[in-house]
Amino acid sequence: MDPGEDLAWMRAALALAQRGLGNVWPNPAVGCVIVRDGVAVGRGWTQPGGRPHAETEALARAGAAARGATAYVSLEPCCHWGRTPPCTDALIAAGIARAVIATRDPDPRVNGEGVARLRAAGIAVTEGVAEAEAAELNAGFIARIRSGRPLVTLKLAATLDGRIATASGESRWITGEAARRAAHLLRASHDAVLVGAGTAATDDPALTVRLPGVVPAARPGPVRVVADGRLRLPLTSVLVATAWQTPTWILTLPGNDRARIGAFADAGCTVMEVRADATGQPDLAEGLRALGSRGITRVLAEGGGTLAAALLGAGLVDRLAWFAAPGLIGSDGAPAVGALALAGLDAMPRFRRTGITPVGEDLLLTFTRAE
Amino acid sequence: MDPGEDLAWMRAALALAQRGLGNVWPNPAVGCVIVRDGVAVGRGWTQPGGRPHAETEALARAGAAARGATAYVSLEPCCHWGRTPPCTDALIAAGIARAVIATRDPDPRVNGEGVARLRAAGIAVTEGVAEAEAAELNAGFIARIRSGRPLVTLKLAATLDGRIATASGESRWITGEAARRAAHLLRASHDAVLVGAGTAATDDPALTVRLPGVVPAARPGPVRVVADGRLRLPLTSVLVATAWQTPTWILTLPGNDRARIGAFADAGCTVMEVRADATGQPDLAEGLRALGSRGITRVLAEGGGTLAAALLGAGLVDRLAWFAAPGLIGSDGAPAVGALALAGLDAMPRFRRTGITPVGEDLLLTFTRAE
Ligand SMILES: NC(=O)c1ccc[n+]([C@@H]2O[C@H](COP(=O)([O-])OP(=O)(O)OC[C@H]3O[C@@H](n4cnc5c(N)ncnc54)[C@H](OP(=O)(O)O)[C@@H]3O)[C@@H](O)[C@H]2O)c1
Ligand SMILES: NC(=O)c1ccc[n+]([C@@H]2O[C@H](COP(=O)([O-])OP(=O)(O)OC[C@H]3O[C@@H](n4cnc5c(N)ncnc54)[C@H](OP(=O)(O)O)[C@@H]3O)[C@@H](O)[C@H]2O)c1
Repeated sequence: MDPGEDLAWMRAALALAQRGLGNVWPNPAVGCVIVRDGVAVGRGWTQPGGRPHAETEALARAGAAARGATAYVSLEPCCHWGRTPPCTDALIAAGIARAVIATRDPDPRVNGEGVARLRAAGIAVTEGVAEAEAAELNAGFIARIRSGRPLVTLKLAATLDGRIATASGESRWITGEAARRAAHLLRASHDAVLVGAGTAATDDPALTVRLPGVVPAARPGPVRVVADGRLRLPLTSVLVATAWQTPTWILTLPGNDRARIGAFADAGCTVMEVRADATGQPDLAEGLRALGSRGITRVLAEGGGTLAAALLGAGLVDRLAWFAAPGLIGSDGAPAVGALALAGLDAMPRFRRTGITPVGEDLLLTFTRAE
Repeated sequence: MDPGEDLAWMRAALALAQRGLGNVWPNPAVGCVIVRDGVAVGRGWTQPGGRPHAETEALARAGAAARGATAYVSLEPCCHWGRTPPCTDALIAAGIARAVIATRDPDPRVNGEGVARLRAAGIAVTEGVAEAEAAELNAGFIARIRSGRPLVTLKLAATLDGRIATASGESRWITGEAARRAAHLLRASHDAVLVGAGTAATDDPALTVRLPGVVPAARPGPVRVVADGRLRLPLTSVLVATAWQTPTWILTLPGNDRARIGAFADAGCTVMEVRADATGQPDLAEGLRALGSRGITRVLAEGGGTLAAALLGAGLVDRLAWFAAPGLIGSDGAPAVGALALAGLDAMPRFRRTGITPVGEDLLLTFTRAE
C-alpha cells in the first residue's frame, strides 16, 4: 500500500491504456496491471474496437496468480452488461484482493457503481491514484459522455510567423520529416480526422496513417471527416475513392441534391446533415455532437485555416498540437488560422502549455484550453 | 591541465564576460579568472564603456597570488596600446605561468599576436577551450570586425499564429509580464535597439531598459536607433525628448529638410544619412555598417513587421528571439513579419534552434541563422 508503488504501477497501467487511443472508440482506452508480491502477473489494455476490455485481458494472462493480487486499473471497471460481461464480476471471480483505480468512469451506468460492487464483494478499493493523468488520457471519452461531443485537438504546422504556405501556395515542406511522422502518429491516436472542404478540394489528401512499421490493427485508421456544406468534395477524390477501406464521413447542410448524396453513399461515404450556423455554414458544434453520437471520442482537426478559425470561434478547440517550423514566410503567405474577428484581446482564445517536444528541427508545442 | 577543469574555469570566465554584453561596445565583452592551486584568486570582466579590461581587473584582485598562476581568458588578450596598455604585458609582468584562451581576437591588431607575445615570454598557452561558446558570446564583436556591421537579433513577441495585435491594433498585452521582463533583459545585453518609423510613430516607445533592481551602470542603456527615411519621427516623441539622457540615432535618407535635421540635432539626436535601397527606403545594410563604424556590435531589432521583413529580405537577421504567447488572434490581426515576397519555399529564411526557455505562460525560442 506504498503510495509511491501504487503510483508507479498505475503509470504502467496508463502506458498500456495509451495503446488503445484511436482504436477503441466508442469505448475508453483502459490499461490494467495485476500485481502479486511486487510482480506484474498480468497486463492488459482495451483491444481494437473496444473489446475485450483491459481487465479481461490482464486476468487471462494472470490466470490463477490473480487470486489475492492487486489490480491496477486506469478507469473504474464497468459493472453493466454491454457486449461483454461486467469487469467487476470478472475481478471478483478471479479473487482479486485489492483494486486501485485512477479515475471513475463518468458513464452513468458505471460512475461509482463499479467501485461499490467491488467493495460489496470485499475487495479493498483505493481511488484517485494518478487521477489527473488518467482523466487526460480519457479526456475524449469523458468529453463525449459529459457533453455529447468528442475532444477536439487542433493540429497545425506553421512557420514561426504562423504561415502554412507561401503566397503561391507552396507548402511542401514547411516542417521536416520527423514532424510529419509525429503528425501521423498523432493521427493514429485519434478516432477521427477533420478537415474543411477547402483542404479536401485543394490537397486531395488521403488522411490515413502512413508510418513505417505501424500497421493499422483491427481498425482501418481514423475516420476521415470533411466539413463540406455544399458537398463540393469531388466524387473522384482520394477520400471518396477509398471510403470502403477507410470510412469517409461528410458533414453537410440539409438540402443538397439527393442524387449527389446518393452517389456519395454508393461510394461508401456517410453523409451527415447538420443545420446551418449563423454564417450559413454547417454548425460545427452540432456536427461534433453527430460524431459523438456515433461513438467518436477524439477528433484531430487538421485545418485548413478557415475551419480552424470556425472551430476556435465556436469555442470548440480543447487542445492544440502546434508544429512550429524554424522559418519565416512573411505576411503574404497563407495564414494558419483564418479571421477570428475578435472584439479585443480579452476575447483571444488562450491556451495553457502542456508540452514542448523538439522533433527534428521543428518543435511540437501542445496546449490545453485555458479555462 | 585536466581538460575538464580547464573547461569549467573557462565557463566561469565566460559567465563573467556575459556581464559586459551591451555595456562595453566598441570593445568585446571578456571575462578572466586567475587560478592558483585550484582556487580562483582573481576574477574580472570588461568594465562599462569597455575599460578596464577583464585581465586588468582580475590581476588587480589576484595581486601577488598571480605569480605562477593560470589565467583563463575568454578572448585572446590584446597586445596593442589602445586607451589602455596591452593586457599581454600585464599578464607577463604579473608572472602568470599559463594562459588558457577560448578564442582568438579577430581584430587584425591582435589575431594571434597576443598568443605569440605570451609564448615568447615563456607563458604556456592553451587555446580553443570552449571556443564555440566564446565565439557565440562575442558574435557581435566578431561580426563587426569581420563584416563591419553589428550582429542583428530580431526580437518579436507574437501569438502562436504570428500576430502582434488585433485588427483594431490592440496589443497590450499579448505576452505576459515575465516575457516582458525577459525582453527588457535582452535589451540590456545589446548595444543598440532598432525600430522602424512606424513603431516609433504609433507606439511612441521609450526603448529603455526598465527592470526593477537593474540600474544602468556607467552607460545610459542601449542606443535607440530609428530607421526613418523621411524623418517623420515627431520632435515631440519620447525618443527625441530624452535623447540627451539615452542616445537616439536616426537612420535616414539624404535630402531631408536641413532645418528639420538641425532641430533633431539640437534635441540631442544623431542623424545619419544612408543611401536608398532598391525600394527607395534607407539601405539597411549600409545603415548597419554606419552603426558598426560607430562601435555598435549588437543590435536588437524590435520591429515592427515592416522593418522585420526588410531586415529578413536583405539577409541581415543573424539571430531570432521569438516570444511565443499561447493564444491565437487569427488572420485579421497584425502580422509579426511583413511581406517577404518569397520566390518559393527554398527562399524562406530558415533558422536553427538554439534555445527553448519557458517564461511564465510564454515561450522564448531562440534561433541562429541556418547557413
Ligand atoms: N500546414 C497545415 O497544417 C495545413 C493543414 C490543412 C490545410 N492546409 C492548407 O490550407 C488550405 C485550405 O484551407 P482553407 O482555409 O481554404 O480551407 P479549409 O479550412 O480546409 O476549408 C474551408 C471550407 O470548409 C467549409 N466549411 C464547412 N463547415 C464550415 C464552417 N462551419 N465554417 C467555415 N467553413 C466551413 C467551407 O466550404 P464552402 O466554401 O464550400 O462553404 C469552407 O470554405 C490548403 O491550401 C491546404 O494545403 C495546411
Ligand atoms: N509585438 C511586437 O513584438 C511589436 C514590436 C514592434 C512593433 N510592434 C507594432 O508594429 C506596429 C508598427 O509596425 P509597422 O510595420 O507599421 O512599422 P515599422 O516596421 O516599425 O516601421 C516601418 C517603417 O519604417 C521605415 N523604414 C525605414 N527604413 C526602412 C526599410 N529599409 N524598409 C522598410 N521600411 C523602412 C518606413 O517608414 P516610411 O513609411 O516613412 O517610409 C516604414 O514604413 C505598431 O503598431 C507596433 O505596436 C509590435
